[in-house]
Amino acid sequence: MQAVDTILSGGVVVTMDKQFELFQDGAIAIHADKIVAVGTKDDVLAAYSSKNVVDCGGKYILPGLVNAHTHVPMTLLRGLADDLRLDVWLIGYVMPVEREFVTPEFCRLGTQIACAEMIRSGVTSFADMYYFESEIAQATADAGLRGVLGQSILKFPAPDADTYEDSLDYTRRFIERWKGHPLITPAVAPHAPYTNTDDTMRLCADLAVEYDVPLLIHIAETANEVDDSIEEFGLRVVERMDGSSVQLFRAKTLCAHCVHIKPFEMRILHDRKATVAHCPSSNLKLASGIAPVAQMLKHDVTVGIGTDGPASNNDLDMFEEIHLAAILAKTQANDPTTLPARQALLMATRQGAEALFLGDKTGSLEVGKLADVIVIDANVAHNMPQFNRDPEAVYSRIVYAAKSSDVRHVLCNGRWLMRDRELLTLDEASLLEEARAYALQVDTFMRAREESVLSKLVAVSELEQAESYEVQVKARIADEVIIDKLLKHPDTQIIRFNHYRQYDSYFLFDDEGRERVRYREDDKIDDHGEVESVRSRLTYSVPTTEREFDQAVLLFRSRFIADATRPVRFYREYFQPLHERQLEKDRRRWHILFQGVLYYLNLDQLLKPQVDGLFIELKSRTYSMKDADVKAQRVQEMLEILGIQPGDIIHRHYIEMVKDTAVAGD
Amino acid sequence: MQAVDTILSGGVVVTMDKQFELFQDGAIAIHADKIVAVGTKDDVLAAYSSKNVVDCGGKYILPGLVNAHTHVPMTLLRGLADDLRLDVWLIGYVMPVEREFVTPEFCRLGTQIACAEMIRSGVTSFADMYYFESEIAQATADAGLRGVLGQSILKFPAPDADTYEDSLDYTRRFIERWKGHPLITPAVAPHAPYTNTDDTMRLCADLAVEYDVPLLIHIAETANEVDDSIEEFGLRVVERMDGSSVQLFRAKTLCAHCVHIKPFEMRILHDRKATVAHCPSSNLKLASGIAPVAQMLKHDVTVGIGTDGPASNNDLDMFEEIHLAAILAKTQANDPTTLPARQALLMATRQGAEALFLGDKTGSLEVGKLADVIVIDANVAHNMPQFNRDPEAVYSRIVYAAKSSDVRHVLCNGRWLMRDRELLTLDEASLLEEARAYALQVDTFMRAREESVLSKLVAVSELEQAESYEVQVKARIADEVIIDKLLKHPDTQIIRFNHYRQYDSYFLFDDEGRERVRYREDDKIDDHGEVESVRSRLTYSVPTTEREFDQAVLLFRSRFIADATRPVRFYREYFQPLHERQLEKDRRRWHILFQGVLYYLNLDQLLKPQVDGLFIELKSRTYSMKDADVKAQRVQEMLEILGIQPGDIIHRHYIEMVKDTAVAGD
Repeated sequence: MQAVDTILSGGVVVTMDKQFELFQDGAIAIHADKIVAVGTKDDVLAAYSSKNVVDCGGKYILPGLVNAHTHVPMTLLRGLADDLRLDVWLIGYVMPVEREFVTPEFCRLGTQIACAEMIRSGVTSFADMYYFESEIAQATADAGLRGVLGQSILKFPAPDADTYEDSLDYTRRFIERWKGHPLITPAVAPHAPYTNTDDTMRLCADLAVEYDVPLLIHIAETANEVDDSIEEFGLRVVERMDGSSVQLFRAKTLCAHCVHIKPFEMRILHDRKATVAHCPSSNLKLASGIAPVAQMLKHDVTVGIGTDGPASNNDLDMFEEIHLAAILAKTQANDPTTLPARQALLMATRQGAEALFLGDKTGSLEVGKLADVIVIDANVAHNMPQFNRDPEAVYSRIVYAAKSSDVRHVLCNGRWLMRDRELLTLDEASLLEEARAYALQVDTFMRAREESVLSKLVAVSELEQAESYEVQVKARIADEVIIDKLLKHPDTQIIRFNHYRQYDSYFLFDDEGRERVRYREDDKIDDHGEVESVRSRLTYSVPTTEREFDQAVLLFRSRFIADATRPVRFYREYFQPLHERQLEKDRRRWHILFQGVLYYLNLDQLLKPQVDGLFIELKSRTYSMKDADVKAQRVQEMLEILGIQPGDIIHRHYIEMVKDTAVAGD
Repeated sequence: MQAVDTILSGGVVVTMDKQFELFQDGAIAIHADKIVAVGTKDDVLAAYSSKNVVDCGGKYILPGLVNAHTHVPMTLLRGLADDLRLDVWLIGYVMPVEREFVTPEFCRLGTQIACAEMIRSGVTSFADMYYFESEIAQATADAGLRGVLGQSILKFPAPDADTYEDSLDYTRRFIERWKGHPLITPAVAPHAPYTNTDDTMRLCADLAVEYDVPLLIHIAETANEVDDSIEEFGLRVVERMDGSSVQLFRAKTLCAHCVHIKPFEMRILHDRKATVAHCPSSNLKLASGIAPVAQMLKHDVTVGIGTDGPASNNDLDMFEEIHLAAILAKTQANDPTTLPARQALLMATRQGAEALFLGDKTGSLEVGKLADVIVIDANVAHNMPQFNRDPEAVYSRIVYAAKSSDVRHVLCNGRWLMRDRELLTLDEASLLEEARAYALQVDTFMRAREESVLSKLVAVSELEQAESYEVQVKARIADEVIIDKLLKHPDTQIIRFNHYRQYDSYFLFDDEGRERVRYREDDKIDDHGEVESVRSRLTYSVPTTEREFDQAVLLFRSRFIADATRPVRFYREYFQPLHERQLEKDRRRWHILFQGVLYYLNLDQLLKPQVDGLFIELKSRTYSMKDADVKAQRVQEMLEILGIQPGDIIHRHYIEMVKDTAVAGD
């Protein structure tokens, strides 16, 4: 009779070993960090004794679940912004907040909250990708969970590094600090192919190979990513990773998502022994699509299941994820026999551990494996009755009806982390208190940012210039030939001529339309009428008429200009304007010196909405009231040269001539 | 200061009223069965007093959830069989068990377990379709929940009625018994268009209109249903229901599923004020597809959310269902801004109540509405932190992160059903005990049924005949002309000739292949070589060679024949054979009298797998050993007439000449 630390006795032991052995009235014995016996209750109790025999009658004893992909500190961003398109969510909300708040302290707290949530829902191992991963490692080890923790590397500055070289240095130190720890497996995590270069990814793979640690990466999450990869590199994403410029799969690579991969890419993953983390909730919520999981499994790819970060899920509940993986695959394959319950549970246990390259250590209840064990309650209204005709029905009960709240006990590495739903390694109440304080800070930051359209613009763009005064006059003309009178006038010298097609979207934020953001696509037209180049810019302005001269007008504009690096749709969804107006026009623009001073002469034709006739604008920047006065007078002279009558002068902006187009929410 | 029964005070009041009003530090006052005040805590406490002021600080106060489609007694069939195709699951498992077990007592117990589960997960109203609905009504009323309860009507015999006329009578009595009850709304439930006739559905609509009660029905759940409807009636399903032969939508109609409907059908539903119950989990699990919910909402169709029955979900958790509805719609629309959290929650509250035609009574927290209220805990690890910048974030927290286990209190119709997670109207422990007893009975029944292939066959078919003896000989022949020697022989008279193309699938259940189920499609070929008619039959047999005569063989066959009413795929998945063999042959068959006795002469050519040469079979039924002896002698004579040598005789069955084809699970 061998004495051991703990015996979990009674209940159904669901081993998830290679034979999928089940013990109906089973038991397992645990000593130190290991499982020393798995079998029937009678057999185990005949061979082992313990001061700590825990009655698990009416319960299921299972290997701890494996969350194959997450970003644990993002618990602190849970629910920050939802129901937004990926870029609006990421660039408009998550990244500005991350830039401001992500510190070692943030990562420590966020990890602790995530660990509390994961222990409560039966997770004992997880794979993470984030910043300050050494802090995450410390918090995870303290909480007693097993983690494969990937330090993020990007080609851009990150919250924990100004350059990717810094990140790589940090990663090397991180690996050296944690390698060999009983709970922590350090890893290298180039964020994604589209946020890295071939070079940075090759260096990441070098580092992972050098230390024999896993490499974690996001792969083919969206159709866009694949389209861009094909456009830029002529290769699909997995193909590019496998190519000679990166050779990513030299490393033990865990690929998150793989929503948009083809069978030949599955074969590459299989041949290179790369593994996949399937994240169904996150993929659905961000409208990324449905990963072809059943097909990957047919190609013998090792696939685990992950929750993804709590900012995009919005929880870390593996029971929901397993359930969803199983039912979603059926509709995708148009076959309800696809991905049956046992296989889904396998992906969250033994196969999940294999996906994390921990298959020899955890993921099933087998003698010699580490004691990562959970006990879940079967006697609950939402999981009754229990049919025993088919012993395999236990998998269906766990996958289709059990909930994270049914988890009663959790042990990891032989240590009790939760007993009777009481957390033993974390002080949940104080964590929630700390989280509340963080949320207040984030709220304050976000409120300040959301207070004005301008600060929202600043959050996503680098602004180029600030404000200006302008003297301006606009007039309707009958025939474009009249402008020759000015262009050929002896006082006039033409500096430059450009021809544009301009597509403007104006976002208005109140009924008066005072504050405006204009998104302008400027298509420069060459002599043959072809588009020569395209540029998109954002202009924020609050036009105010400062003074009216005879016919010319002095405008004061608080004006900020930024390159529009994203499509107009992004800005529309990000700024959420009250109204929107569209304007398309043909503009011929001359830079002229009139009496030696720079003016712009625009000859405009409004195409959409179509407005009959031609318009000219005469404009000049100005810097003082006296200068404005002089320039207004010169404008007056030019109007006379052109023969324009006071009745032709128009005081409205173009934008005031057109109607609102429908915007989302109208 | 008015005294009221209960005040729920503090916490965020999420009214779900038309203005989506939120009270951050709110309260509601409840008196008798009604909500009498909703507002800020200060306002409510200034105007109302109660001996029962419940502190809800740090919690959310919400209208009770509405489960728009379920079959509550089916809790007792939860997990009976999973990961099967709809027909195998329904016809192979659920219906045989229902025929055996569904009684008033079964419905009472199943309903009580369902009510326990629904109360625990925050549901206060639900729509049901099942049998013995009056029992369900009593159990629901006793549990204190609100139900729109539809008595099922089918064209076939049902567990509670031999004919649809009986069902209609029962339904009329059921309506008269329950109409006007404060909690129960009786309803008429023609199961589905494909399980009813135009007549039965018209009568159902008549009855619903006569009593002004709702009509519940399954509509367009699968693509097959729509295809069949188009084939049989030339109309899509909603179209057919709206047509003059049924005019279903005269009644207040709640249509479950609507997975496969077109925009013009959405317009019909909208115009006729019919409503929809969207059941995402069930639709995914049964691989039915993804209902176009966002499109229905754009067509202003009233859509609620339902769990469907716990045998196909496998739980009654509306939190999971709301979450899934919200995220699934995004991927379906390829747009993450689709079906935002607030709209998803609306479908499970106010709009859900409208879908049940209870919109004036429940679904939102408004003065004058019935007090159907739940309180859910917001201070949990999986739902922290809480950002308050955007007050609407509360919807995202509820939809994307809250769980059914967060529900603390439930009131329905002003009555407390759960307080601090303690059920007040149901004895959960004794229900689970009763469920256990039922499960044992079902297990015993199923075990007996699964014991033999024959009993499995009996469970899904009506058998036609039992056993027979046969004298049989088979031989290879070089040329078909030789059969003329027999056909034109003076002792021979040709009775009938048929030409068939036969497609056989043999299911074998052990390596010896003793027990067999043969699925045969007989295509009868006309004189022009065209298929004249098709018939499919199942034959169960255990062939045993009883005695060998000179060259002919006497077979004893325990043989059962049944019409194969379902596709071969169904039987394959239902019987789960160990091996399967396929055989396709051309058969010309003569019924002949030889010396006045009936024999069959088959001239067979094996096409797939192709076997060279032609085969003849000579067969005759026999009933006694003496008769067999005589017939064997006659067979010997005929072989001589044909000039067949002993070396040409073949003792193997055709099936023994071909190899197994791969079957599922191999």
